[in-house]
Amino acid sequence: MAFLDSLEKMFDPKSIAIIGASDHQDSVGQALMKNLVGSGYAGSIYPVNPKRKNVFGIHCYKSIGLVPEKIDLAIIALPSFIVPRIARQCVRAGVKSIIVISSGFSEIGKKGIKLEKDLKEAIAGTGIRLLGPNCLGYIRPDKKINASFAIRNALPGKLALISQSGALCSGILDWAQKENVGFKYFISIGGMLDIGFEDIIEFLEKDPEIESLVLYMESMKDSEKFLNAAKNFAKKKPIIVAKSGRFEESAKAAVSHTGAMAGNDAVFDAAFRRAGIVRVEEIQDLLACSEAFSKQLVPKGNKILVITNAGGPGVMATDAIIKNGCRLAVLSRETMRKLNRVLPKNWSHNNPIDLLGDASPERYAKAFEIALKEKNADCIIVILTPQAISNPSGVALQIAKKAKNCGKTILASWIGENFVEQGREILQKNSIPNFETPEEAARVFSYMNQYRENIKNTYELHCELPAMHRPDKEKIALEIKKILKQKRLVLNEIESKEILKAYGIPVNETLFAKTLEEAVLKAKQIGFPVAMKIVSNEITHKTDAKGICLNLSNEKEVEKAFSQITANAKKFNSHAKIAGISVQKMVESSGIELIIGAKTDPTFGKVLLFGLGGTATEIFQDKSLELIPLTKNAPCEIVQRTKVYKLLKGYRNKFKADLTELAGILESFSHFANDFKETVEEADINPLLVSNGKLIAVDARIVLAKKAQKTGLK
Amino acid sequence: MAFLDSLEKMFDPKSIAIIGASDHQDSVGQALMKNLVGSGYAGSIYPVNPKRKNVFGIHCYKSIGLVPEKIDLAIIALPSFIVPRIARQCVRAGVKSIIVISSGFSEIGKKGIKLEKDLKEAIAGTGIRLLGPNCLGYIRPDKKINASFAIRNALPGKLALISQSGALCSGILDWAQKENVGFKYFISIGGMLDIGFEDIIEFLEKDPEIESLVLYMESMKDSEKFLNAAKNFAKKKPIIVAKSGRFEESAKAAVSHTGAMAGNDAVFDAAFRRAGIVRVEEIQDLLACSEAFSKQLVPKGNKILVITNAGGPGVMATDAIIKNGCRLAVLSRETMRKLNRVLPKNWSHNNPIDLLGDASPERYAKAFEIALKEKNADCIIVILTPQAISNPSGVALQIAKKAKNCGKTILASWIGENFVEQGREILQKNSIPNFETPEEAARVFSYMNQYRENIKNTYELHCELPAMHRPDKEKIALEIKKILKQKRLVLNEIESKEILKAYGIPVNETLFAKTLEEAVLKAKQIGFPVAMKIVSNEITHKTDAKGICLNLSNEKEVEKAFSQITANAKKFNSHAKIAGISVQKMVESSGIELIIGAKTDPTFGKVLLFGLGGTATEIFQDKSLELIPLTKNAPCEIVQRTKVYKLLKGYRNKFKADLTELAGILESFSHFANDFKETVEEADINPLLVSNGKLIAVDARIVLAKKAQKTGLK
Repeated sequence: MAFLDSLEKMFDPKSIAIIGASDHQDSVGQALMKNLVGSGYAGSIYPVNPKRKNVFGIHCYKSIGLVPEKIDLAIIALPSFIVPRIARQCVRAGVKSIIVISSGFSEIGKKGIKLEKDLKEAIAGTGIRLLGPNCLGYIRPDKKINASFAIRNALPGKLALISQSGALCSGILDWAQKENVGFKYFISIGGMLDIGFEDIIEFLEKDPEIESLVLYMESMKDSEKFLNAAKNFAKKKPIIVAKSGRFEESAKAAVSHTGAMAGNDAVFDAAFRRAGIVRVEEIQDLLACSEAFSKQLVPKGNKILVITNAGGPGVMATDAIIKNGCRLAVLSRETMRKLNRVLPKNWSHNNPIDLLGDASPERYAKAFEIALKEKNADCIIVILTPQAISNPSGVALQIAKKAKNCGKTILASWIGENFVEQGREILQKNSIPNFETPEEAARVFSYMNQYRENIKNTYELHCELPAMHRPDKEKIALEIKKILKQKRLVLNEIESKEILKAYGIPVNETLFAKTLEEAVLKAKQIGFPVAMKIVSNEITHKTDAKGICLNLSNEKEVEKAFSQITANAKKFNSHAKIAGISVQKMVESSGIELIIGAKTDPTFGKVLLFGLGGTATEIFQDKSLELIPLTKNAPCEIVQRTKVYKLLKGYRNKFKADLTELAGILESFSHFANDFKETVEEADINPLLVSNGKLIAVDARIVLAKKAQKTGLK
Repeated sequence: MAFLDSLEKMFDPKSIAIIGASDHQDSVGQALMKNLVGSGYAGSIYPVNPKRKNVFGIHCYKSIGLVPEKIDLAIIALPSFIVPRIARQCVRAGVKSIIVISSGFSEIGKKGIKLEKDLKEAIAGTGIRLLGPNCLGYIRPDKKINASFAIRNALPGKLALISQSGALCSGILDWAQKENVGFKYFISIGGMLDIGFEDIIEFLEKDPEIESLVLYMESMKDSEKFLNAAKNFAKKKPIIVAKSGRFEESAKAAVSHTGAMAGNDAVFDAAFRRAGIVRVEEIQDLLACSEAFSKQLVPKGNKILVITNAGGPGVMATDAIIKNGCRLAVLSRETMRKLNRVLPKNWSHNNPIDLLGDASPERYAKAFEIALKEKNADCIIVILTPQAISNPSGVALQIAKKAKNCGKTILASWIGENFVEQGREILQKNSIPNFETPEEAARVFSYMNQYRENIKNTYELHCELPAMHRPDKEKIALEIKKILKQKRLVLNEIESKEILKAYGIPVNETLFAKTLEEAVLKAKQIGFPVAMKIVSNEITHKTDAKGICLNLSNEKEVEKAFSQITANAKKFNSHAKIAGISVQKMVESSGIELIIGAKTDPTFGKVLLFGLGGTATEIFQDKSLELIPLTKNAPCEIVQRTKVYKLLKGYRNKFKADLTELAGILESFSHFANDFKETVEEADINPLLVSNGKLIAVDARIVLAKKAQKTGLK
C-alpha cells in the first residue's frame, strides 16, 4: 500500500531536512535541531534556512531545492503564511513526507482556514503525506529519532502514543521519564490536515513490537476508517483513549482549540465500544492504564483477590472494586486451608487477605504463592502500607520474584512516598505497575477487564435481515419523493407507520379520517375502543397540543373527541393546517412505554437509540446507543444496557416483553435507517408499547434530511 | 466540662509513661520511645517495663505505681490479655488519660470482645479517657509530642486529622512530608472503646488555630453526638471525610477489620450533608482536599475561570468542571477588552483563556491580574504545561505574588514531573495547592464549593408540625398495643391508613369487608368505581399474590372480584388466613406513583425515604434520604434531589403535583416515625398517587419493632 510506504519514510527516514532550523535560543527551530542532533540519529540531517550559513555546526542550505540528497522527511517550522509555498518547494524537490510544526491554521479562523486549504492543495495528488500542522512532531527512540521540539526525550519501550494535544505530550514525557515508562512511537498528531488517527493506527498495527496504544483525542476525521483500523488493532493489542470535550461547554472549548466539531459524546462511547477501544475518563487514568497494559496480562475475568497488611486500605480497595463493576474473588476451601496453615490466627479469614501490620516479606511471599493458585481469582492486587516494622523493598522483591509468568494480572499499591519509593522501583523494574492508592489499582483493573469484554464486539459481523422482512425499497423511495415534492420534511404518523410496517415492525391499525363522519366510520371499521390523534404538518408534539384522545368506546365518544381535538389544535397553533384525524386501534398497555430512534451524528452517521420512552424519556435518561449498521449482538446489547431491561425481562411479571421480538424490531428499524441514510435525517417510534408481552408501535415520526429535498426533487 | 479536661491532659500532657517501653529493635515499645524522645518533648518521660533497668538511657520503672510523678498520659503497648490489668494499675496510680496501642480486642472475635469489656470496666466511672485500642497513637507537632509508633513524624501546620485506620496514617504522613503539608493534630483513633470521633471533634473545635479537619472513617459510635459536634465544627471550618465500606462487600471487610457494623452507606451521605461535612470518594481526594482547604479560601460560588498555555488541558479542565456540577465563568465585556489589549491576537477569546504555547511569565501575570478582577469568577485554575519555551518557575513566582489576599480561590496544575517541580514548590510554599492534573483541580474545587453549600444546612432548626396535624398519640399507642397483644408485628392496610389519617395524611376512603355481601354494601357506600385488595396478615406483597382488583364499576364486578381475589390469595399461599377484603375509593391517577418510607438505621436511627414508587422503585432507584427528625428545609430538599421532582414540578403538565402538600405529608409522616420511634420499625406509603395535582396514599404498611413486643405487652 502506497500510503503505508510514505508513512514508512516519515517514521523511518534516512534523511531529514529541518526547514526553519536555527541556533536562536528559545526558538522552535533550535529546539528541533537540538533534539534531533542530540538523539543520536544515524541518518543525514540538513538544516534549511536562507539566513544562516550553518546551524549546530552543520552546513545550512538556502532552500530545500538545494539539498544534495533526496529527503525522506522535511520538518517545517516557519510562520504559517509561508508554509504552503515551502510545501510546494518540497514537492518539487522530491521530498517523501512532511511534518508541519507551525500553528496558525484553521484554529485561528478564516485566514487560517484559507492557508490550510492552500497547503492541502500543495500536496494534493503527490503521494506525499503530511503530519500536522500545529504539532510537536514525533519521537521514535528505537531508531534514535527525536523529530520534535518536546522538552524531554522518550525512553525506548513498547508503548505507542498519539496525542491531539501537543502540550499534553510534553507533560506525559516528563511523567514517563520519572515513572520509567518507555515508548516505541510517541506522536503528536496536530491538526490532521492529512494524516489522521486512522492512518497511524493502520501503520502501527503492522509493528509486532508495540504492546499497547494510547490516544488522546478531541475529534476524529474519518470515522469509518478509524473504526476499521482501531478494530483491527484492538483484536491484537489494547487501545486506550482519553477523549475530552464531553459536554457542550468543553466541546466548544475544543472547537476553538482544534477548529473541528466533535459531535455527540455518547456516540463516541458507542463507537469506541464497537471498535474494542477502552475509554478512560481522566488523563491520570490514561497514564496509569498505559503503564498497566504495557506491563501486565489482560485478565481472563473480573474477579480480584486483595492481599494487604492493613484493614483500611483493603476496605478502600473493595469499595473501588465493586464501584467499578468488578468482583471480589471468593476464596476456595483449599486456599483457606492453606492460608490458615501459614498465617497468624488473627488474619482476616476472607478476601481481602489481611496479613496484619507485622507482615514480613516471607509472610507476603507465602500468601501470594497460595493466592496465585486460587482458581477463582483473575487478578491479585497487593497492597503495602508503611508500618513501623514493614519492609517495603523486601516485600517488593518477593512479589516480583513469584509474579514472573504467573498467568494472572498482578497490580500493586505501595502507599506513601519516600518510605516506599525503593520498593516501588523494584516493582516497576519487574513489570508490576504500582499505583498511589488501592482505588486507582482497582479502577485500572476494571479498564483492563473492559478491554477483554470489548474485543468480543470486534469479531462480530453485521447482521442480515431475514428475507421476509425485506421491504419494497423502491416503493418507499417513491413515497418519500412524493412527500418531498410537497415541500415537506416531516412524515405524518400514518405515513411513518406505513413505512415501518413495510419493514415488519408491528404497528396498531391506523386509518385517516378527514371529517367527523369519516372518523366514526373508520372507528367502526377498526372496532372499539379506539384512540384518535391530530394529523397536522405543523403539529409534531401531539401531546403538548392536547391532540390525543384515548380509550373511546362508542360513536358518541368518537364524535366528541373529533371536535375536541380539532378545537385544541387550533387553540395550540392558530396557523396550523389540520389535515384530519388518525383513528387507531386502542392498545392495552402494561404501563411501559419504550422509545426507538435513529439520529444522524456529524462524525459517525446514523445512530440507533433505545430506552424508556413516553414523557419520562428526558427525565430518567435511561437510554443506550449503537452505531448503524448494527453488529449481530447489538440489538440485544443495546437493550441490556438500559435499566428498563430488568422490567422487560420479567421483573414482577408485570412488564414482561418478548425480547426476541424487540431485538427484531430494533434490527428492522436500523435497516430502515441505513437503507435511507441519505434521505432520512431522523426517525422514532415513541411510544413502543408492551401489550400482553407483545410490542406495538403506537406512534411514529420520520423526518427527512434537508439535503434530500435538493437531490430528491431531481 | 470534665471530659474536655481529661482530653486536655491527653493531648497536652506534662508527663508521659510508656508501659511496655523497650530497646528491642523492631518492637512497638522501642518505636514509641524513639519517636517521643526524638520529637523533643519538653515534659517528663517515664518508661515502664519490669524486665529492664533503663530504656534509651532513661531509668525504667517496674510498674506504673512506682513512677514518682503523677502521670497525665500513659501509653500501653503490651499484649492485649494483660491490658485490662495494667489499666487498673493506671487507675490506682492516678493516671489522667490512657492510650492503648495494642491490638487483639473486638476485631479478633469472642475472646477479644471479653477483653474489651474488661478494659471498659477498668476505667468505668474514673473520669479517665482512653484512646484506642488498636491504634497508632497521636502526634502534636506544635508541642513536640510524637506519642505514636508511626514511621514518620508530622510537620507542624494547621490541619487536624483523625483516622480509624492506623496503617493509613503512616501512608499519609509519608505523603504529607513530601508535599509539605503540616498538622496541628494527627490522631489515630483505633477501636473507639471510649473516645470516639465526636469527643475529639468537640475538643478540637475549641482550637482557633486549626484550619480544617480531615477524617478517615469506617464506622461511628454515637451518631447524635457526632452530628452535633461535627455541625458546630463545620460552621466555623471545613470537615472533610472519606468513609469507606460503601457496598455490602466492603462493609463486610470493614466489620472483620474494626468489629463494628457500619449501616447503610446512603444514610451516611444524608448525615454528613446534614452536619455540613464534605464527603470525598477516594483517599486521593482526601489528601488533595486537605491541602486545598488548609491553604485556600472557601469559594463564594461555583464559577471557575481557567488560564492555560495549551488548549487540550483547558478542554480537560472544562470536562471536569461540568462533570462535577460547577460552571465556567462567563467573561464580562470589560475583561474581554482588557485581555484583548494584552494578549496575542490568536488567544482563545473565551474561558478557558488560552495564552498560547509561548506564554511568558509576564503574559501569565497580566492575564491573571485581569482575571482576578472578573466579578463573574469565584475561582481561578491556572494550568501550565511544559513547552519548549515555558518557564514554570517564573510563572509560579508571578502567580504567587499576585494571588496574595486576592479574595478568590486559586488552584494550580503544573503538568509534568521534574521539569515543573521547582515551579510546584514555589506555588506550594505560597499556599497555592498544585494538582497533577486539571481534572483533579476541578474536582477538589467542587468539594470546596460543596462545603459552602452544605454549611447552610447546619443553621437550620427542626420543624414543628402545625397544631391542626397533632394526632391523639395515646389513642394510637393503644391501637398499637392491641395489635401487639395479638402477637402481630405488621399492621394491615386499613389499620395503617387509620394512623396516617390521624397525622393529616390524605388517604382514599378504605373500608373492611369480611364477606361478599359486606363488600357489595361497602362498595355502594363508597360509590363506584372502587378498588379491592386482599387483607391477610400472611400476605404483604398484595400485587405478587394477585390480590388487587382495580376499577370495579358495579355490583357484579365487585362480586366477581371478591371471589377472584380470595381464590388467588389461597393459591398464592395456602397457609394464609384471609381476614377479608378492603374496599376503597378508586383514585384517578396521572400515572406517577411515589413512595414515602421510614426505616431504622443501626447507626442513625429513623430515616425518611422519598422517591419514585410502584413497581419501578427498585429498577430506577430514584430516591433520596433524610435523617428524622427533619430540618426545616428537608421536606423540600428530599424531593428536589430526586429525578421525579422534575415531573412533579410540572414537566409537560401531565404529572404536576401540589409540592407544598407533598412537603406537608413528608413532614407529618416523619413526625409519626419519630413519635413512635421505639415501637415502629418501618413504615411506608407505596404508592402515593398524584391525582389531579393532589396527593393520596392508596396503600400503606406499618411494621412494629420486635423489641416493642416485649415492652409493649407489659
